[in-house]
Amino acid sequence: MKIKVLCTGTLSHQYLGEGVSYYIQKLKHYGRFELIELKLAKNKQSEDPTQVKKNELSLFIKHINAGDSLVLLDDKGQQFDSIAFANYIQTQTNHTPGNIVFCIGGAFGFDDELYKMAKAKISFSKLTFNHQMFRLILLEQLYRACSILKNEPYHHA
Amino acid sequence: MKIKVLCTGTLSHQYLGEGVSYYIQKLKHYGRFELIELKLAKNKQSEDPTQVKKNELSLFIKHINAGDSLVLLDDKGQQFDSIAFANYIQTQTNHTPGNIVFCIGGAFGFDDELYKMAKAKISFSKLTFNHQMFRLILLEQLYRACSILKNEPYHHA
Repeated sequence: MKIKVLCTGTLSHQYLGEGVSYYIQKLKHYGRFELIELKLAKNKQSEDPTQVKKNELSLFIKHINAGDSLVLLDDKGQQFDSIAFANYIQTQTNHTPGNIVFCIGGAFGFDDELYKMAKAKISFSKLTFNHQMFRLILLEQLYRACSILKNEPYHHA
Repeated sequence: MKIKVLCTGTLSHQYLGEGVSYYIQKLKHYGRFELIELKLAKNKQSEDPTQVKKNELSLFIKHINAGDSLVLLDDKGQQFDSIAFANYIQTQTNHTPGNIVFCIGGAFGFDDELYKMAKAKISFSKLTFNHQMFRLILLEQLYRACSILKNEPYHHA
């Protein structure tokens, strides 16, 4: 069992890259973790929202296997507090034969096909966060969840 | 009229400091903005939550003037989406004789005295965010709010 985070595009700010690396190292202490940064081929780039979502879908599905539990980070999703989020991950870990795959959509959200495949939609906030910064926010929250599940003091620090 | 952010403690991660500096520069393009990082004197440090909150209060109130609109970032606060948050700031700007002061509490939250002084409590999420990272998240959201109010494209990027 692995936790995977799928996202699109390269980070354009070095400080975000450093923060993301910091949490990847921390998450690897808890088990198998992978962040996969997907890049659209130049000839696959489009301005049309439907086409963008279709192109992103074609990248995402290569990393989602039968038996995985797919979780979309979506502004219309369910909100958890950090302890409930940790418990959700624990439940998925116990009942998923494959990996838990968190998927951060592009600027236009997700293709319908991905919604059909998803086990859950989770929203972190009613606010729209910066797309690149969200990668850091999610990783910190996954680290917090792992520390909660291990009864470590981070969550109360 | 100025937007002020009051917070306690020094950032311990360089990457967060770089991100915070990045948004401070961006926010200064929209008008007067100030981030004030308050530090407790060594002989004022305590382990007792009530005392910590009292000590932090004594720092915060030096930067809050009569006529200011005090907004506490509080997990029990009201949730806005980014457009409603921008509109809230606009309304405060129109009706506040002083400054809009956003206050990020310490690990134990705020002293009751501060709740009494506050115009509003706002929550960004049901999740508990990393205290230091929250400074970055708030600044990005203030920048987003300013760009929304100026009809600039950032919010849709």
